[in-house]
Amino acid sequence: MVGGRGGPALITLTTDFGSTDPFVGIMKGVIAMRAPGEPVVDLSHGIPPQNVVAGALVLRAAVPYFPARAIHVAVVDPGVGTARRAICVETADACFVGPDNGLLSLAAPLERALRVVEITNDAYLLSPRSRTFHGRDVFAPAAAALASGIAPAALGPERTEMAELTLPVAVRDGRAIRGEVIYVDGFGNLATNVEAAMLPARVVYVEIGRHAISRIVDTYAAVDPETVLALVNSWGVLEIAVRNGDARRRLGAEVGAPVTIVGD
Amino acid sequence: MVGGRGGPALITLTTDFGSTDPFVGIMKGVIAMRAPGEPVVDLSHGIPPQNVVAGALVLRAAVPYFPARAIHVAVVDPGVGTARRAICVETADACFVGPDNGLLSLAAPLERALRVVEITNDAYLLSPRSRTFHGRDVFAPAAAALASGIAPAALGPERTEMAELTLPVAVRDGRAIRGEVIYVDGFGNLATNVEAAMLPARVVYVEIGRHAISRIVDTYAAVDPETVLALVNSWGVLEIAVRNGDARRRLGAEVGAPVTIVGD
Amino acid sequence: MVGGRGGPALITLTTDFGSTDPFVGIMKGVIAMRAPGEPVVDLSHGIPPQNVVAGALVLRAAVPYFPARAIHVAVVDPGVGTARRAICVETADACFVGPDNGLLSLAAPLERALRVVEITNDAYLLSPRSRTFHGRDVFAPAAAALASGIAPAALGPERTEMAELTLPVAVRDGRAIRGEVIYVDGFGNLATNVEAAMLPARVVYVEIGRHAISRIVDTYAAVDPETVLALVNSWGVLEIAVRNGDARRRLGAEVGAPVTIVGD
Repeated sequence: MVGGRGGPALITLTTDFGSTDPFVGIMKGVIAMRAPGEPVVDLSHGIPPQNVVAGALVLRAAVPYFPARAIHVAVVDPGVGTARRAICVETADACFVGPDNGLLSLAAPLERALRVVEITNDAYLLSPRSRTFHGRDVFAPAAAALASGIAPAALGPERTEMAELTLPVAVRDGRAIRGEVIYVDGFGNLATNVEAAMLPARVVYVEIGRHAISRIVDTYAAVDPETVLALVNSWGVLEIAVRNGDARRRLGAEVGAPVTIVGD
Repeated sequence: MVGGRGGPALITLTTDFGSTDPFVGIMKGVIAMRAPGEPVVDLSHGIPPQNVVAGALVLRAAVPYFPARAIHVAVVDPGVGTARRAICVETADACFVGPDNGLLSLAAPLERALRVVEITNDAYLLSPRSRTFHGRDVFAPAAAALASGIAPAALGPERTEMAELTLPVAVRDGRAIRGEVIYVDGFGNLATNVEAAMLPARVVYVEIGRHAISRIVDTYAAVDPETVLALVNSWGVLEIAVRNGDARRRLGAEVGAPVTIVGD
Repeated sequence: MVGGRGGPALITLTTDFGSTDPFVGIMKGVIAMRAPGEPVVDLSHGIPPQNVVAGALVLRAAVPYFPARAIHVAVVDPGVGTARRAICVETADACFVGPDNGLLSLAAPLERALRVVEITNDAYLLSPRSRTFHGRDVFAPAAAALASGIAPAALGPERTEMAELTLPVAVRDGRAIRGEVIYVDGFGNLATNVEAAMLPARVVYVEIGRHAISRIVDTYAAVDPETVLALVNSWGVLEIAVRNGDARRRLGAEVGAPVTIVGD
């Protein structure tokens, strides 16, 4: 349980550990050892290596669909073993455990945190602690402690700040909205930072690189196969895709690629 | 439970969502929210994007090894958001949930269905419903409803038809059987549509592309390393493989490649 | 439970089956059928195809982090269907189930085995048994039997030997330690067979291929981005890595690449 609110919790894992090595399995072993029977759900272990922003976006997208008392562990941690802190962020909805490098900050921004705790209490961590694998030695055991009913405050001293990511913001520019690609999914779909609410009532065209799209459709199947399209995706943002195809490859676009929407 | 038969069920997931994005994790969150404690098993999330036939074959291969009351959710859904129906197919053995595009039809063909229901009852679905991610908004919550004891009939109106896939059928042609590759697994093994029972008692040769194999063996290790071989695989069909190697790459063969077996 | 020691167990799975095909899901179906409710944890399904040594190393690295009564199933099995035995190895800490090809022998060497049993008792296996998929027909059902409280001795006759892997051993040579790369992880980090205890108190340089590293650091972040580094990794061995990069690709090094550490 989280913070003594009672009943079983659920732990989610989000990492850049991939599926080749036993790193994720080892974290689950530590959890099974210290919080037997605790359910563990994988959010993604395919975050591009050390891509903190991608991990933060995945976590933000997924968390609203989990029970309120879930404990979300995320490990994309290029600074492992340095002075970067390990933190637990408690919100009204959930607990978050991970490195203090911004990874948790889109799902659990400081303004919504009830409490930020630096995880330092050796009583709840593995010993000896490696300098390279805190998923095993710090984050998994801290989550297991929370799942076992330990209050976040017991994990270490409270902090009043945490690292926060700043995502690029789409801007209005006359009749245009200027945004950019912020996430590329496994299908090659390009999610932008343009939220549905920003879109003009009537779109004249959407531009990405040298490609212009004449309207925003509702579904992938609204255009012919292999055609480039724009729609509002399941995250509520404008997405550029190719029906039955891969927009990243077709358009040669990556995170950061500018996208312009022109209304009338 | 399925159809009020009592006791805990089990939900399996088969998708083309891959392991990079949080799509599968989000479906598990919805299930955890609406059917807490329900066990979820991943069959595969590596179905080639939008390859309905591959998804249907995987489902057909796996379902016999699951408990009878399992709920099998499959999402390979190029028509998401269009008029294609969402369906639940109940058989004597299990419940199947997915798009009505043939994906369920090899594991649960109409002739074995006790009931086909179109999933329309908003009471059991997420609201608002996106036009691009019915795994989250329709299929996961419908499965959670079934797991919670809701009868399939409560999900929507009964239907008398469903989309069904037609697989190519191997044919006899004098002393020959003419079939084709229908599935390529992750090792590069080529599964054909030639069932063990069709094979002649004495095989003279097996031909694929320009390659002839002189006999059918029992095990991969029956031939020298790197040698092309033919055997009856764990699905009960003729498979072309390379010992300790990759037959797809070696033979340049894909789904649809003709395979001929000549007996005496 | 294992060997009648009571209480719920936990089954781990380590295979080279990948995430594309339903092979792992089918094994979980068999377990769900025969040991309902038994928790199953994936260690890795990304072992390079038929690479018994990599599977054995993964298993050895992960097992210490699992509860003592866990049942570890491993399937990297190029000899499936031949005369190679299927075995269950019981140690003081756990039970291991897999092919007798050395795969289990780093985690559960003969000298630490309380018992080695050849798995032959058809009462606990699937029938008919394929010649190509013992994960489904032999290893999963044997693990389910153990999880259900069947004693290892019931699975078949006791054996006094098993196949054991011999890993290359790092050697001292004057002021130098000569070792080699034994595992490459998904980040491209190169784990060697040089254990931390072998390292000289003062390292003059570490050499791999034509590359010399001037010291051993504590963390990836101790050097500049894209720089080659050496550290003691979370397995307790010397590892060659590139900060925020891929050492395998950078150095063109694979398993077997010589690594020399020179002290003063």
